[in-house]
Amino acid sequence: MRQLVVGRQSGGHALLVVHGGAGPIRAELVDSIALAERRAGLRQALAAGWRVLKGGGAALDAVQEAVRALEEHPRYNAGRGSVLDALGVVEMDASLMCGRDRRAGALCGARRLRNPILGARRLLEDGRVFVQARAVESWLEEQGLELKEPGWFITEERVRQLEAARGTGRSLLDHAGEALDGGGDDGGTVGAAARDSHGHLAAGTSTGGMTNKAPGRIGDSPVIGAGTWADDTSVALSATGEGEAFIRSVFAHEVEARVRLAGEDLAQAVGAALARVVDCQGEGGCVALGQKEGVLAWNTQGMYRGWVDASTGRWGLAIFDEEELEGGTVDQLDEP
Amino acid sequence: MRQLVVGRQSGGHALLVVHGGAGPIRAELVDSIALAERRAGLRQALAAGWRVLKGGGAALDAVQEAVRALEEHPRYNAGRGSVLDALGVVEMDASLMCGRDRRAGALCGARRLRNPILGARRLLEDGRVFVQARAVESWLEEQGLELKEPGWFITEERVRQLEAARGTGRSLLDHAGEALDGGGDDGGTVGAAARDSHGHLAAGTSTGGMTNKAPGRIGDSPVIGAGTWADDTSVALSATGEGEAFIRSVFAHEVEARVRLAGEDLAQAVGAALARVVDCQGEGGCVALGQKEGVLAWNTQGMYRGWVDASTGRWGLAIFDEEELEGGTVDQLDEP
Repeated sequence: MRQLVVGRQSGGHALLVVHGGAGPIRAELVDSIALAERRAGLRQALAAGWRVLKGGGAALDAVQEAVRALEEHPRYNAGRGSVLDALGVVEMDASLMCGRDRRAGALCGARRLRNPILGARRLLEDGRVFVQARAVESWLEEQGLELKEPGWFITEERVRQLEAARGTGRSLLDHAGEALDGGGDDGGTVGAAARDSHGHLAAGTSTGGMTNKAPGRIGDSPVIGAGTWADDTSVALSATGEGEAFIRSVFAHEVEARVRLAGEDLAQAVGAALARVVDCQGEGGCVALGQKEGVLAWNTQGMYRGWVDASTGRWGLAIFDEEELEGGTVDQLDEP
Repeated sequence: MRQLVVGRQSGGHALLVVHGGAGPIRAELVDSIALAERRAGLRQALAAGWRVLKGGGAALDAVQEAVRALEEHPRYNAGRGSVLDALGVVEMDASLMCGRDRRAGALCGARRLRNPILGARRLLEDGRVFVQARAVESWLEEQGLELKEPGWFITEERVRQLEAARGTGRSLLDHAGEALDGGGDDGGTVGAAARDSHGHLAAGTSTGGMTNKAPGRIGDSPVIGAGTWADDTSVALSATGEGEAFIRSVFAHEVEARVRLAGEDLAQAVGAALARVVDCQGEGGCVALGQKEGVLAWNTQGMYRGWVDASTGRWGLAIFDEEELEGGTVDQLDEP
């Protein structure tokens, strides 16, 4: 397992961590254009979240905007550009949680909702917590959210990946494409966790799931406690990886419980919880933060990840094992 | 909160605890015929689970059979006799977890599956963990499970309850009917936890959700870590109550984490976790057991509940605040 700790001195300051999926990403196999576009996507997500936080905005809004930026990016497996299931259909899951009061909203199986994270937000506000999305997409449209035709979500890259996956007869982790065709790394599940200048925490996750997944499959992303958790008194976290193993480990809540009940520090808790995922033959990673530092961790070959630390005024992003692939001052985040 | 501790001396022996929902059950308002039938249902569930355990069978099978018996009972809110959503449709959720290896199977939104708990079992065996049931009901039929037409699940009692709920414009907890019409207590979510003579644990939960619920709503019952959990090293648990609050408290895993990480005893852990549900304005209860005792707990006016303890050779059941409404030796469980 690899871990990066950020914002050690950031207590009381805003902190944002984002991910775009963990998986067997290998530099030599990932298309360089895709990689550059995905780096730009991470930077856009950091900028979107930071725009909220720098003005004293809420962690919940920052997480929502960071996740929405990655949903809008066609190279990530959320919103448009989501992977296809075994029937060639996009079905998306998302969740969002507010650390102030543990309000949460989550949905599974969305087919028309342009931004599933906005649907999760609406459900959170409405106290509905968890729904099968197809039953509420029309209602969400009445609430002002945008729907698109199912075909709008499908990109050529995802069609090729489904064909490759069908050739093997296996369902695939959302980021394992390159293991098949030598070049198709496809970006993964997206998520974010934030602390605002008032000390409130939030986290959210959005995904299209796994390429060639069985129809109806629900991963950990919309499961509060597995893929997403936020509580001001302890931890906000968004996970990515093999959802079945993360559900069976109640991963996000395991991390939180270790911090709250066992007094472990965040890095230690994340490591121990990831070990329980491995017990279930799973792998993946997460971004997490508490009232002090943030932790970005993965036990795969890489994880698309980024962070903004208001205490130092700096941001960074990385994909493979490097500490920082790209970074700078927060002022630069608003530059095109 | 009320708690009953059973099987204090039962370590190494089989132990089974079942519930049929917690809620504002009041003796003076519950129809006496319904109450008698529901008592018979609890006894049937205990007998079904005990038949497995007494022969040295697996906890997983005992839980499945106890839950199935309550699904088959039209007076409980699971399988036939499930409550109706706002559109007058039955949509059922269920989950099952094996403590040996933390394998789990869960489904939401089943409309035709006669026994959702058997669907959860099949998913568990197949490593599929969590699915939207409508996508797999035909596949489950191919696997030998029985489907019924949606109308088969609907009882007259549930139609009346939906009409009463529509009159108030509110969605209702699955067992709160009597608060409206003075006599319609309708039996709740069902679940069980078991320890077999080999020391393995399992738990499962099945429900039709809430009367007049919004279409697509998913409660805690199919959420591993919220409504159901099992791990041989710590706790097996099935919950019942206001699902939104149980999800936001990751209730089942909270209990387990308190036992495993904080060294609390089971009764203490259940009490502390229920307090976190109350923080989310929720109420309900659970049945739980570890390698020693079992705990049945609720912070409502009552909970349909029963237990079988191989160490004493006795079973019991209760509904309101009494310690034991009915009980006897295990031999009697097989009597008609």
